This record gives sequence, structure tokens and C-alpha cells, in this order.
Amino acid sequence: MPATKAYGAHSATTPLVPLTIERREPHPHDVQIEIKYCGVCHSDLHTVRNEWHNAIYPCVPGHEIVGIVTAVGSHVKKFKVGDKAAVGCLVDSCRECDNCKDGLEQYCHQGPTGTYCAPDKISGGHTHGGYSKGIVVHEDFVLHIADNLPLDAAAPLLCAGITTYSPLRHWKVGKGTRVGILGLGGLGHMGVKLAAAMGAEVTMLSHTPSKEKDAKRLGAHKFVLTSDEAQVKSVMGYFDFILDTVSADHDYNFYLGLLRTSGVMVCVGAPSAPATVPAFNLIFGRKSIAGSLIGGLPETQEMLDFCAEHNIVSDIELIRMDQINEAYERLLKSDVKYRFVIDMSTL
Amino acid sequence: MPATKAYGAHSATTPLVPLTIERREPHPHDVQIEIKYCGVCHSDLHTVRNEWHNAIYPCVPGHEIVGIVTAVGSHVKKFKVGDKAAVGCLVDSCRECDNCKDGLEQYCHQGPTGTYCAPDKISGGHTHGGYSKGIVVHEDFVLHIADNLPLDAAAPLLCAGITTYSPLRHWKVGKGTRVGILGLGGLGHMGVKLAAAMGAEVTMLSHTPSKEKDAKRLGAHKFVLTSDEAQVKSVMGYFDFILDTVSADHDYNFYLGLLRTSGVMVCVGAPSAPATVPAFNLIFGRKSIAGSLIGGLPETQEMLDFCAEHNIVSDIELIRMDQINEAYERLLKSDVKYRFVIDMSTL
Repeated sequence: MPATKAYGAHSATTPLVPLTIERREPHPHDVQIEIKYCGVCHSDLHTVRNEWHNAIYPCVPGHEIVGIVTAVGSHVKKFKVGDKAAVGCLVDSCRECDNCKDGLEQYCHQGPTGTYCAPDKISGGHTHGGYSKGIVVHEDFVLHIADNLPLDAAAPLLCAGITTYSPLRHWKVGKGTRVGILGLGGLGHMGVKLAAAMGAEVTMLSHTPSKEKDAKRLGAHKFVLTSDEAQVKSVMGYFDFILDTVSADHDYNFYLGLLRTSGVMVCVGAPSAPATVPAFNLIFGRKSIAGSLIGGLPETQEMLDFCAEHNIVSDIELIRMDQINEAYERLLKSDVKYRFVIDMSTL
Repeated sequence: MPATKAYGAHSATTPLVPLTIERREPHPHDVQIEIKYCGVCHSDLHTVRNEWHNAIYPCVPGHEIVGIVTAVGSHVKKFKVGDKAAVGCLVDSCRECDNCKDGLEQYCHQGPTGTYCAPDKISGGHTHGGYSKGIVVHEDFVLHIADNLPLDAAAPLLCAGITTYSPLRHWKVGKGTRVGILGLGGLGHMGVKLAAAMGAEVTMLSHTPSKEKDAKRLGAHKFVLTSDEAQVKSVMGYFDFILDTVSADHDYNFYLGLLRTSGVMVCVGAPSAPATVPAFNLIFGRKSIAGSLIGGLPETQEMLDFCAEHNIVSDIELIRMDQINEAYERLLKSDVKYRFVIDMSTL
């Protein structure tokens, strides 16, 4: 499959268009995947438009990839032709640093190889993501998807799923934990589902009253309208853990006030403005503000298995490949419930 | 001892002078203590000068109190006349909230009663601290000091000691932990001693080369001059835990860069400028920035016992009571190694 149909951008200011990319012939440890579906992450848009100054053109985004194995290298043991397979945000890492050895490839000291717009150490050039018909990835960076999960709605688990699952696990959220989820978008709606499945008491924090119904349908036990003073007062000092999925600028101190003693607020969204937090707001109550980045390969597989066991997938809107530019515009208005997924058969 | 000699300020702009305060006769659960020594904490100065807008005048500061029991109430079981005893930053709390029940009285939801300048729920008026000949405190807020600790140098354990001990314990610092201590003052020098005694590898982070010798004498294994680029580079991504004792404004992001993956930086000093931290600096490396406030009563006793076991006290400069105003001026210039302690026999 060297020449592979894809969809990408030739510059930061031009729309995504059909193009052809090169994929390598599978090496002995490679898995070749026919991509069936690819989720649309806000990072795709940031990168395509070079808002994070990390774009390399042509830029073919997409790191929520699911499909079927069509070929395997001679040494591949974990996959065979016909298997369902998935690829997330990473396709390589140094494999030698302490983080890689600990299964925390996302924090590889050499810098992991992103699924798109990263220098490709194996084939040269740069990596291309999942807005394409196929992809070839070392088996160590390919994941199994259980048969009971619908492939299209499972795609967003590879980024939105693991990004929320990993901090919930790292900070030991479970039965008895009071969790607040801030932001009901692609990440937030997965956070609600996952935290609820882990046994936590889940509260959606939102300034949009209309989100209450959906939050509860997704599994939230409570809804707090953050513009309502009385409702806010009722949860002051209440939460053990707040998962902050918002990437628009917001006041972290307001939410720190909702944490109970020793509570932790974890940011997985990155606003352009820095958090501005007086030390006193952390000191009084032994509170923490932290960050978390996707997840490593072992934990991503654990998350996929957890989702299979609990029948958790994303709420999606399936689109055709040629609707992607329109989808980006809607994404900017948060007009999606809750993740666009591209049906790659339309490419 | 109702009328008790003390030293305090009548306003934010006048020096501390001798005065007389009222102490209550011991209630059934009270312990009356003849104060032998009282440490001088920077909070004393902040409060006396009303820099935290919490002063009530006359203001008698001091919350690093050690002495000898001179009387006990009829129901007191834990102390008897002649015992060594200590009082720290708190003399009361609601005792009913979940934090009080968990021994985290410093985070009492009703607000604990500070040792000075707090409304006194028992006697009315406001509380007066340890710059005085005696104090009367409910036995639940009085601590035991082992015989092997010198009373004068033990005094600062009651604030500087517990403020650094508590976060080291909460974040499970011990053998194998790489600890950075930021700031070599009253708090920082206790942080070095305690972290080293817990078995951690301790590095002093300082921009003052002359502090290296002292840091190592106190127990630091390494010294990193933070103005030296090569030295800083050698500890990028190195520390599991940084204890930040600095209350002057500083750039938190610089120190976050010294944390390894999943590292935690805990602030016990409170600069006037807020921490300004881009979320990316937390996300890349799953880092946390947190705060911690003194410690609860059970943990303060645990700390005193730990110090007795490891022969840890503060490095002090003993002063006369009438040197306190001069000592405050020196405190402002960080001209003390590392804690002033008032010899109360000079009052």
C-alpha cells in the first residue's frame, strides 16, 4: 500500500483536500491496517491550522484510528490479518528511557513520535495520521479492540477516552470519590461515562442549563449550574477530584474552591492563558492542580478493555470525509455531540 | 495566672513593647504552661504589621511555644505538673467536622482558632500567642516533647517543623525519593533535615553559592546553584518532589521544569504574586503544583516524636525578649541562621 489515499491540508490557511501519501511496506514488526473510521479531535484542527506551531505540510491529521489488519510483518505475534485494530496518538517512542520502560510512552524523554506531523524515524519524512485509507504501525503501538464495541463509536476512545481515563486512574478515582467534570465536549462526555463506570459519584459542572439532561443521560449523578450562586454554594469544598477538560480560558480559582481538603484538579485541556493561582488557594486545603497527557500504550489497552467490559463508547456523529472542513467549523462552535467520526469508506 | 506578662504591638506601625494580658484560670481540660522559649516565625511579623489584614490589637504573636506544665485542670489526663509541653499554631477547632475528626484541625471547616489574633471562643476577646510568660490551652491542643530534645531549639518544630514535615509525609517522601528544597530559611533548613532523615536524596536549590556549605552540613546530599545553567541542566526533569518554602515572588515554571514525570511541587510559602502556570507545563509530565498548611495535632505529635528519634531540632539564634524588634528587621533581610528563639526568662 505505498501510495495511499488521504485527506489533508497543504498549508495553515487552506482547506483539507484529497491527496496521496506514501505508506511503507510492513517491516517485520509492522501491522498494516485498513482504516475504517477516524475520530476528529480538536488537536487535528489546531495542528492543521498550525495554531500550536507544530504543523508540517502536507498535514494529514487523525489519531483516533480503528480498522482491520490487512497485512502483518513476519515477526508480528500480536495481530493477524482480519483482526480489529486501533492506533491512537503515538506510533513510536525511544523505548529505552525510564518512562518508555514504565509504559508511559507519552512522556518519553526523547519525545514520542506523534501519529501525525512528527518526524518519522522509520520511513523518513513526517508521519501522517488517520484521515487516510490505511496506516502501517509497529505492533507495539497497535491496540486490540474487543468485538462487542462498535468500531465507529470506539474510535474516539483512542484520544478522548484515554485522555480522561488516565488521570482518573492515576488519582485513584473509584467508589466513594466525588468527581466533578468540567466541560461537556468530546473529552468531558467520556470523563462522565468513565468516572461513573469506575463507581464514582459524578457531577457535571457547566454554565449551560441545557446540558443537564444530556449529562445525566451520559451517567452524571448531579448537575451544577455554575452560574447559579446557590447551586455553587452547595458544592463548595465538595469534590475530591475535578477533571477540567476546558480549553477556553477560565478561572481555575473558582474550581479550586469546589475541592475538598486534599482535593486534586487535573487539567487535560490547555487554555491559551496560564492558570493564575495564588499559593494561598492551594495551601488552605492542601489542594493540587495538575495536568495529564493522553496515556501510555499499556494503559490505553487497559482502557479499551475496560470500555469493552462496561460497554462504553463515544457519542458520535458520523460524517463523510468530504464534510471535514464543515465539521471543523462546527467544532469551533462546539456544535457536535460529542465527537465527529469520519467514515473512511467515503474517501 | 490571669494577669500575665507579655510582649506585643498596639498597632501595625508601632514596635512591640511589654504589656500585660489576661489568661484564664485552667478549665477542667486545660493545661497551664510556663513558657520557656518561643520561636519567631515570619508569620508573627506579617501579623503584627497587619500585612495579612488579620491583626487584632493588642497583638501578642508567637506560635512556636515550649515550656513546663505548671497546673492542669481536674479532667486532664495527658499532662501533669512538671511535664515538658508545647503549643503550635492552633489552640482550638470545632472538633466536629470531618477534618477535625480526621486530625486535620488546620483545615477545620469552621476555621481553627489560631494561637494568636483569633477570636477566643472560650475566654472571649482574642487569643494571645507565645511572646508571654504563660499560656493556658485545652489539653487536646498541647503536645509532648521528649526529654532528649533541647527545649530552645525544639520550639521552631511547632511551626517550621510541622509545616515541612506534613507535606513530606503526605506525598510519601522516603528512601528513593529525589527531593529538592527551595529556600534555605527557617522552613527550608527544617525541610532539609527532615527529608534527609526520612531517607530521601535531598538537593538544596539556591541562587546563593555561599549556602552550599551550610546546606550540606544540614544534611543535603547535593547543592544546585540555580543561576548556573550547567548545574540547572543537570537536574532538569530530576526531582520527584520539590518543597517550595520561598515567600518572595518567583517563577514556578522554572521549578516545574526540574520535576520528573508525575512529580509534585508543594508550596508552603505564599508569595504576594500568584503562581502563573501554563497548563502545558503541568500536562507534559503529569506534574502537580500543590499547597500545604502546617499540620494537624496527631501529625504534629508524630513529627515531634520523629524529631526526638532522629535528634532533629532547629538551628537557632537565641535572643532576649527586648531584642525582638531588632530581630524582625534582621528577619526581613533573611539575616538569621535559621530561626530566632526568644528566651522567655528575659521577659
